Amino acid sequence: MRRGQRGRACRTGHRPVHQPLASALTGGSVTKSNLPLDAGRLWSDIMALADITDPARPYTRRSFTTRFLEGRSWLARRFAEAGLTTRIDTAGNLIGRVEGRNPALGVIAVGSHSDTVPSGGRFDGIAGVATGLEIARALRDSGARLDHSLEIIDFLAEEPSEYGLSCVGSRGMTGSLDDRMLDLVEPGGEKLRDALRRVGGDPDRLPGARRSDILAFLELHIEQGIVLESQSLDIGVVSSIVGIRRLEIIFDGEADHAGTTPLQLRHDALVAAASTVSAVRRIAEQLDSEGLGYFVATVGILGVEPSASNIVPGRCTIVVDARTTNPALTKRFVAALDHESEAAATAARVRRSAFTTLSDGPPVACDQGLLALLRDAARDLGLAQTDLPSGAGHDAAFMSRICRSAMVFVPCRAGKSHAPEEWADQDAVAAGAAVILQAVKALDQSLQRR
Amino acid sequence: MRRGQRGRACRTGHRPVHQPLASALTGGSVTKSNLPLDAGRLWSDIMALADITDPARPYTRRSFTTRFLEGRSWLARRFAEAGLTTRIDTAGNLIGRVEGRNPALGVIAVGSHSDTVPSGGRFDGIAGVATGLEIARALRDSGARLDHSLEIIDFLAEEPSEYGLSCVGSRGMTGSLDDRMLDLVEPGGEKLRDALRRVGGDPDRLPGARRSDILAFLELHIEQGIVLESQSLDIGVVSSIVGIRRLEIIFDGEADHAGTTPLQLRHDALVAAASTVSAVRRIAEQLDSEGLGYFVATVGILGVEPSASNIVPGRCTIVVDARTTNPALTKRFVAALDHESEAAATAARVRRSAFTTLSDGPPVACDQGLLALLRDAARDLGLAQTDLPSGAGHDAAFMSRICRSAMVFVPCRAGKSHAPEEWADQDAVAAGAAVILQAVKALDQSLQRR
Repeated sequence: MRRGQRGRACRTGHRPVHQPLASALTGGSVTKSNLPLDAGRLWSDIMALADITDPARPYTRRSFTTRFLEGRSWLARRFAEAGLTTRIDTAGNLIGRVEGRNPALGVIAVGSHSDTVPSGGRFDGIAGVATGLEIARALRDSGARLDHSLEIIDFLAEEPSEYGLSCVGSRGMTGSLDDRMLDLVEPGGEKLRDALRRVGGDPDRLPGARRSDILAFLELHIEQGIVLESQSLDIGVVSSIVGIRRLEIIFDGEADHAGTTPLQLRHDALVAAASTVSAVRRIAEQLDSEGLGYFVATVGILGVEPSASNIVPGRCTIVVDARTTNPALTKRFVAALDHESEAAATAARVRRSAFTTLSDGPPVACDQGLLALLRDAARDLGLAQTDLPSGAGHDAAFMSRICRSAMVFVPCRAGKSHAPEEWADQDAVAAGAAVILQAVKALDQSLQRR
Repeated sequence: MRRGQRGRACRTGHRPVHQPLASALTGGSVTKSNLPLDAGRLWSDIMALADITDPARPYTRRSFTTRFLEGRSWLARRFAEAGLTTRIDTAGNLIGRVEGRNPALGVIAVGSHSDTVPSGGRFDGIAGVATGLEIARALRDSGARLDHSLEIIDFLAEEPSEYGLSCVGSRGMTGSLDDRMLDLVEPGGEKLRDALRRVGGDPDRLPGARRSDILAFLELHIEQGIVLESQSLDIGVVSSIVGIRRLEIIFDGEADHAGTTPLQLRHDALVAAASTVSAVRRIAEQLDSEGLGYFVATVGILGVEPSASNIVPGRCTIVVDARTTNPALTKRFVAALDHESEAAATAARVRRSAFTTLSDGPPVACDQGLLALLRDAARDLGLAQTDLPSGAGHDAAFMSRICRSAMVFVPCRAGKSHAPEEWADQDAVAAGAAVILQAVKALDQSLQRR
């Protein structure tokens, strides 16, 4: 019901949020009941972009697909209407820009991504891009012009793509997209470099996407966890972003007849993979219980070949995703999993033919100066806040390689994300966007005093 | 090398086998070095039919596909050249018939199937159909005409089809294909009844396929095991065929974010499925070790949704295949698996939303009279033989519901089957075919004396 009401409300007009909210107001010239942007307009953009989905499995707008490009066309039109100069860089990022009064000072950037996981939600990524767009419009509407140039960025393929790589655009913008990655191939046989060309990038001129003129990057995102909701908080100031290590493990056995091959003569790849799935969970629970940092690990992909009920599985592939705020835990996890998966292979009389790191991003601590600005903005806006780490990876983690970066989390219902029921309230998103707007204004001044 | 040599040899001409073989000859008017059929012609048919394969994954000719129909057209032409009257019955079986001198006596049938598993072999099924064809030609060439009519049958979809059902044609011919089965749907959305119509059958006139005029059915098949090869035997006379029970188990959890969902809050469907795969193997090993009968169980299919590296699996489906010569073992297996899969669901905080029997065929003892005829034929041909049970299901198991049925196994290399390396030697197949030819001749006489 709540979802439906919000959905209808968003289409009745573009008006600022006026309802008082549950959180305590701490005073100040601006309060949560009087945000310096148009919450309805922001909400309307999020819903409209979410509606551009594969009809059979909402909400799906996979990177590099026709649907994704349709979403980007829609976004580019909104960028243009807001007075932004729009372009796609050689790394395939969609960028809208408002020139500052003194462009030589450099760029303040705000953004996120418009691609989704399969059967994902309406907010993950989209809310952050729409926030950037609304900030640009709010500044224009108020007659304010920044000294720095402002860029709104829709990063390409933040979610793991069919090419086995996430954060393609932010890797490109930070000089972290290498030839090996460009040669990754999706199941249909297309290389990432060709897909990049297809969406308007240019793999042969990737250094052109690498930026040195961006001074600061801010990203709004739904929390994708339950800390803010459970503590009735409005704003999470993200102190750090987990490191993510992805491993592919392949077991090669023999595809024998399921009726005539006695159990003791089998080389069943799935038996080894199943033991390894159990081991991933067991090892992760042990490491997380030690209190040395956040640790989770997941097997989200398991492929069986040839996949017939009457054939002993000849090959199994699993992808393991391990995340932590403490790199020492990942190191111990990988060592233990190496041992256990090899033992599982031996027990099942199969060969562990691959134990490969697909990607390995270290944890990132967000910029202390930006964190302070965000905390101040939330306080001035009368919002209840906390610092917290991010269990999800984000483009901001890559952007921290080339500039000061930080993030704001807004609460989402029951922590659900990467699923159709993902939900954030209209005023929650607007409050987060207002924090970033205030921080952008403050940055525009403070960066000149450095 | 051996495969290549055989492959070339088969194309040099159609001549009887003359090489002496390893097995001891027991004497008699006909010996293995002088078989009453054309081994080269039989071999050439097997190789030609095997060559009709999906080029990207030999040897694949999945039932109901264009490739399958291409194979059948080829077969129907060979049937017609051999003087057989060819038709497709309402259950989609391709049947070639030679009228007997006294058709009122009824039919002796020989056959198998021409469909394959994905990435299967060149012999499973094909060898039995080609044997029937060669027997018809050998009888014609020798001027012999049977009193009974002879039918060569290519049963539809013996292997598990995309509709989740095996032995579609032999079920239909024996009145065992019901409306529930016809309503099964493949992943693309097509119902089995529509697919049946597409390949020339008629789901609305299925009783027309049900036969009461077939007196005996004989099937040649590769062993798909290592008993014959390891004991240097030429012929396996199949004493019984295992019963096969197929179960589908579904676990429903929640598709949460793999980074932000703490381990203790997850509902990971794959964790439950992995435990269940391990349990299937553990329970099967226990039952098989008790010496109360042959028992094997396999998980050949495991599906994960949504299948993304950064999403906790929300749903997992597994298909379990359990086979035995002793139905009491399957009963105990299913009870234990019911308990263990429910416990795995509880431990992983997911729901076991399905525990469904997809199919359940009891073990079948072959006809004692036919077994005696086959043993006599093998002995008269100077072939080394043994009785043995079949771990694989076959159309003969269904045919035993309407007529005396029996099977002959021929050795295959290293027991490999349902895989591209599946291999049987030219003279081994010819020897098995000769046993069936002799048995057909003997049957034609003995059935009249009953």
